Amino acid sequence: MRNIPFYQQAFVDYLDDYIQYKEPQSLYNPINYILQLGGKRLRPVLTLMTAEIFDCDYKKALDAALSIEVFHNFSLVHDDIMDDAPLRRGQETVHEKWDINTGILSGDAMLIMAYQLFENYEPANFQALAKLFSKTALQVCEGQQYDVDFETRDDVSIPEYLKMIEYKTAVLVGAAMEMGAIVANASHEDILNIYEFGKNLGIAFQLQDDYLDAFGNPETFGKQVGGDIIENKKTYLYLKALEFSNADEKQQLIHLYSLKPTDQTDKIETIKEVFNASGASQATREIIKDYTDKAFRILENLQVSEDKKKILKTFGQQLMNRDV
Amino acid sequence: MRNIPFYQQAFVDYLDDYIQYKEPQSLYNPINYILQLGGKRLRPVLTLMTAEIFDCDYKKALDAALSIEVFHNFSLVHDDIMDDAPLRRGQETVHEKWDINTGILSGDAMLIMAYQLFENYEPANFQALAKLFSKTALQVCEGQQYDVDFETRDDVSIPEYLKMIEYKTAVLVGAAMEMGAIVANASHEDILNIYEFGKNLGIAFQLQDDYLDAFGNPETFGKQVGGDIIENKKTYLYLKALEFSNADEKQQLIHLYSLKPTDQTDKIETIKEVFNASGASQATREIIKDYTDKAFRILENLQVSEDKKKILKTFGQQLMNRDV
Repeated sequence: MRNIPFYQQAFVDYLDDYIQYKEPQSLYNPINYILQLGGKRLRPVLTLMTAEIFDCDYKKALDAALSIEVFHNFSLVHDDIMDDAPLRRGQETVHEKWDINTGILSGDAMLIMAYQLFENYEPANFQALAKLFSKTALQVCEGQQYDVDFETRDDVSIPEYLKMIEYKTAVLVGAAMEMGAIVANASHEDILNIYEFGKNLGIAFQLQDDYLDAFGNPETFGKQVGGDIIENKKTYLYLKALEFSNADEKQQLIHLYSLKPTDQTDKIETIKEVFNASGASQATREIIKDYTDKAFRILENLQVSEDKKKILKTFGQQLMNRDV
Repeated sequence: MRNIPFYQQAFVDYLDDYIQYKEPQSLYNPINYILQLGGKRLRPVLTLMTAEIFDCDYKKALDAALSIEVFHNFSLVHDDIMDDAPLRRGQETVHEKWDINTGILSGDAMLIMAYQLFENYEPANFQALAKLFSKTALQVCEGQQYDVDFETRDDVSIPEYLKMIEYKTAVLVGAAMEMGAIVANASHEDILNIYEFGKNLGIAFQLQDDYLDAFGNPETFGKQVGGDIIENKKTYLYLKALEFSNADEKQQLIHLYSLKPTDQTDKIETIKEVFNASGASQATREIIKDYTDKAFRILENLQVSEDKKKILKTFGQQLMNRDV
């Protein structure tokens, strides 16, 4: 088995070959731009790594890995339009650099190109990959819609929130791994288990992202600490704090989440205190551990050597320690 | 063989069963809305009819027909955002009735749902349908991008214009028919020929649409006659008029196409005179006939009975006479 930097490099080399300066350039240049903006390429790395876990040369999984990355970038282009985001990975977003219409149409083309990347697989695997892709892609759309809907709702429940992050983020991690297993012709049971491993790890990762957004180290988190609080975003921390509050505390928290002060420092500190005092921080750390442990338990059922289980577990631990 | 109203009704019944009131409603309601706005459903009818031409029960082609219609409506939703269009079939467009973000995300979901409609076909046909779909869908995006690019270009050539309408409109007609042939397990040669028939008929139809936009009967054309002239749209008529003009006439025409007068009546009349006097109208009628004849010649090569060729030819004639 290779290490993560090896897979990252192999993937980026393959991506570079995939970039074509096709006509109309006004459609394809924005696609090349977003695909080459960088990032850790963790989803495609998971596809390649999973193929090798199931004794298949990672090269056979490169097209599936690329499909996952093209889809992920499609969703970034369209989400950035919806969120009116000016920056992505420190660079201009597609709709900022070009315009909204370009962002819509280039994104559409990327969604189609993601399907085309399955065409070199034989028909049975093609169908399995495309079905998994469609199911996952539709869930990602549903997750994004729930996220939008939640902005204007005051009654979001914890199960609804968990479903939202599962759909918006975690299913794609599961699908990235399942695709590696499909390409490797793994057993039906292994295919189901590796998906569940990836999905649960993805949920844990996203919940940890919520947590670190408030309590992370500003020097290593990579995003603005307190960003969710500034945006009044209803994260797991917020929903748990509401759940644990009495009527008065609840009202105070809801009031704080209606404000957008010029200087956010005090608001951020007050809310972090509420998260800690209410027990929401503790509950969040616990649920992150629950989902991580669940993922690792699922690993035990895989019909692969202990060495290979170890590789996946180490990867999961590195991911949760934000070491990759 | 059944007649067109039969296929239309069978298709609409199938579509009605497909409509589901799924969660999140904010994602799926706009999809149901646009799918139920109506229209002549000509593309899916072509899929059903083609399946029966190749001796296959039309029922087997219903999913493929629905995929074509879902894709067509996806493209309408996203194009209407890009064109800032308030109305579609006399009703509010999706982004008007909801908002732009809803239009983007519901459109994305429809593109994915179109692929899912192939999932009930066995793997080899699934792959053939999905490959054809991806190729076609990407061409439709490219055609839309060319159309956008042409708005701000002064040097659009006739071959470029023909490629644009081929991609934006005609390939989907070809693909609709090819899908019927794939589902019917028609021969490779028949599959290629029926695609070419549909594509050439589609080009003829679109060129006729350009022509009727200027010279059609306001009572039967269905759209505002003169609409393209009001929008300064560079259609085949305009490009041919430019080609046939001397330097002075060219400058006058380009000048007229830079104006947006409050009362458009005079401008429309002047331009129609230019189209006629320059020979552009005549040239447009000729190229429509060329593409129609080409489509009918391709029909001759099909390995089906003369009766069935007759059915397709009659359909083509009705389409070009705007009788369906």
